[in-house]
Amino acid sequence: MPILKNISTLYTCREDGGQDSVHPIENGAVIWQDDIIEWVGTESSIPAEYEHEPIIDAANQIVVPGLVDCHTHLAFGGWRPDEFEMRVRGQSYLEIAKAGGGILSTVRATREATEDELFEKSAKLLQRIGKLGVTTIECKSGYGLTLEDELKTLKVYRRLSETMPLHLVSTFLGAHTIPPEFKNRREEYIKVILEEMIPAVAEQNLARFCDIFVEESAFTVDEALTILEKSKEYGLKPKLHADQLTSGGGAELAAEVEAVSADHLEQVSDQGIRDMAQKNVVGVTLPIASLYTQQPYLDCRRLVEGGVEVAVATDFNPGSAPSYDLPLAMMLSCNHGRLTPAQALKGATIYAAKAIGLENKVGSVEPGKSADFLLLDLPSINFWLYHFTPDVEKRVYLKGEVTDSSQ
Amino acid sequence: MPILKNISTLYTCREDGGQDSVHPIENGAVIWQDDIIEWVGTESSIPAEYEHEPIIDAANQIVVPGLVDCHTHLAFGGWRPDEFEMRVRGQSYLEIAKAGGGILSTVRATREATEDELFEKSAKLLQRIGKLGVTTIECKSGYGLTLEDELKTLKVYRRLSETMPLHLVSTFLGAHTIPPEFKNRREEYIKVILEEMIPAVAEQNLARFCDIFVEESAFTVDEALTILEKSKEYGLKPKLHADQLTSGGGAELAAEVEAVSADHLEQVSDQGIRDMAQKNVVGVTLPIASLYTQQPYLDCRRLVEGGVEVAVATDFNPGSAPSYDLPLAMMLSCNHGRLTPAQALKGATIYAAKAIGLENKVGSVEPGKSADFLLLDLPSINFWLYHFTPDVEKRVYLKGEVTDSSQ
Repeated sequence: MPILKNISTLYTCREDGGQDSVHPIENGAVIWQDDIIEWVGTESSIPAEYEHEPIIDAANQIVVPGLVDCHTHLAFGGWRPDEFEMRVRGQSYLEIAKAGGGILSTVRATREATEDELFEKSAKLLQRIGKLGVTTIECKSGYGLTLEDELKTLKVYRRLSETMPLHLVSTFLGAHTIPPEFKNRREEYIKVILEEMIPAVAEQNLARFCDIFVEESAFTVDEALTILEKSKEYGLKPKLHADQLTSGGGAELAAEVEAVSADHLEQVSDQGIRDMAQKNVVGVTLPIASLYTQQPYLDCRRLVEGGVEVAVATDFNPGSAPSYDLPLAMMLSCNHGRLTPAQALKGATIYAAKAIGLENKVGSVEPGKSADFLLLDLPSINFWLYHFTPDVEKRVYLKGEVTDSSQ
Repeated sequence: MPILKNISTLYTCREDGGQDSVHPIENGAVIWQDDIIEWVGTESSIPAEYEHEPIIDAANQIVVPGLVDCHTHLAFGGWRPDEFEMRVRGQSYLEIAKAGGGILSTVRATREATEDELFEKSAKLLQRIGKLGVTTIECKSGYGLTLEDELKTLKVYRRLSETMPLHLVSTFLGAHTIPPEFKNRREEYIKVILEEMIPAVAEQNLARFCDIFVEESAFTVDEALTILEKSKEYGLKPKLHADQLTSGGGAELAAEVEAVSADHLEQVSDQGIRDMAQKNVVGVTLPIASLYTQQPYLDCRRLVEGGVEVAVATDFNPGSAPSYDLPLAMMLSCNHGRLTPAQALKGATIYAAKAIGLENKVGSVEPGKSADFLLLDLPSINFWLYHFTPDVEKRVYLKGEVTDSSQ
């Protein structure tokens, strides 16, 4: 039963106390058995019963919970690096799409890829993501857009969750966009989602959540309501891509269907914030998408002051958010989203866990939780997101084992 | 005489051809002797005389010149992580300064530090900076602001240049701000700069450039003209911090004194751009400073279209730009500054070298240049700044030797 001692500050990130409260313990210690945390407190208050347990020296470094990336589109075919150049040259997302690029090119490449190919590519990415200190990840489908290809993607996630050490939860996002073969026949595609995809995903137990992209260029609020109500019947909990480019009632809908989270929210209305706060819907900020699409960043402080808990995620995908760097998203949520480093840390740990329904299992350093935490060679979390170097020396504990170390 | 072969694309970054032209060679090869590049071209055209030289396999990776960070404030006492939190909470730079923080707290800490302490701290930073692929760096004084403390800082840079492998050039920035003991006696401080500091720096050959912070809160255009003219008499070439917060004629002055570069420029006027283009003054963008001060980013494309060569640098310092991550600055100069990845690469290599007068020695992969280049496990530079992960596998060649490798 290892005892991690000599921690300068242990940021436990318990859920209570609001966005500011990371519940730090000075001179902290953590004790765990196998993959579960058994005891957390100050070094001087370690119970006598542990006195013969093996000690690991934290060398006066800080400890934070393993990071939780609660919004990614991990498995996809191909990449789109040249669209990045087109975008900075000023070509719009729609222009790029019309030129045969954009999301539909990823749909094509994802359909062409075999399950094994998607698995190999995603496994490599997941290994690198783990080295950054991410110990829990949410992964969406949504580049298949046929029954077969959506199931293929979700099966990749199931294989990853069975073979990789990270905690992984899957989300069905058949309602990501209308696939080209259903152009001008959107009602028929929605029927496929309702009558074929949702039942099959639920039957095979391939996802925990059902997500939908509510936007002028994607799905309407009414369509989303229909799809999310159906998904709830099948036990898939609602999540939403909401109010990214236009304020279209996405946040209000998220509250109405009692979604676990509403994500993006750059254009959220005041009413939407009030509704989300009332129904305890987590707001997920995705600043890397703003960075790469040159769109306004979400003013996270507006949500925090409105009583919404804000999670921070990468939105990792091959188009609008091609970096999987969660600390980068955290730093951006401070500089461009007006979160403090403590607020961003809470957003990338316990609130992110809450955004994927795992708040009782991961996201904080507390007894009963999975033993996932990072030892960082830094004086404070303020210093982490301030100095912001790509080469922070860290040791990653996942389920009680060291899975990566640069120390 | 090693031959690096099997390079998928060799981005030579020759100076000619404008911001877009990185002069790529497909299936390229580089040959060097000791620390100097001897031959560059396609693999199929390697002259017969080299046929018995040892071959290094680039494994079909790309090669770019060693990066040049042409604007840093490397040596300073202390850090200011808690100001980062104050800033995102909305407190202004002036409010922070009035509360005893800001640049003057770094001046205090730098004066208190011994030369050895500054050397040790800076050497550690420089080691980490080198791992990112930076092979040439410019370092400014400006936190001493007494004759003794400015010389102390510049001596640290001389020791670093003598003991560390990187190419390092020093800049005297006594005119960074008015030190507190000269508050309301600015003419007297300027007299110290003119009559004591500049002659001493020149006599001891401690700097190649004289820089000045031209801004409402710092030095006027007239004061800058006086100081830069004096520095030219002593052989120190002019550089300027210009037009960062207000459009105050800094760019125009840079052209007038034929400065090697004008840096920041977020608020540069159209006239300033015309003047800089005419006098061939390099414009240095510092997007990390915009990121951390929540100020507008420089629209680099405006400069490029106006005929100004744009370099990209970090501005690394403990206040407004606390990250030394030059690839981060490059990525930001694309997403927020509208440069393409190729333009940003030219900006962080040959144009950066030009901004510090080293364009004949470093900044491109050409015969006669220092053998400084990076082998990157990536398909293209578009992919580099698009995917933008902190864990790119690379091998750093500096003066012909591998100084760092994650491969």
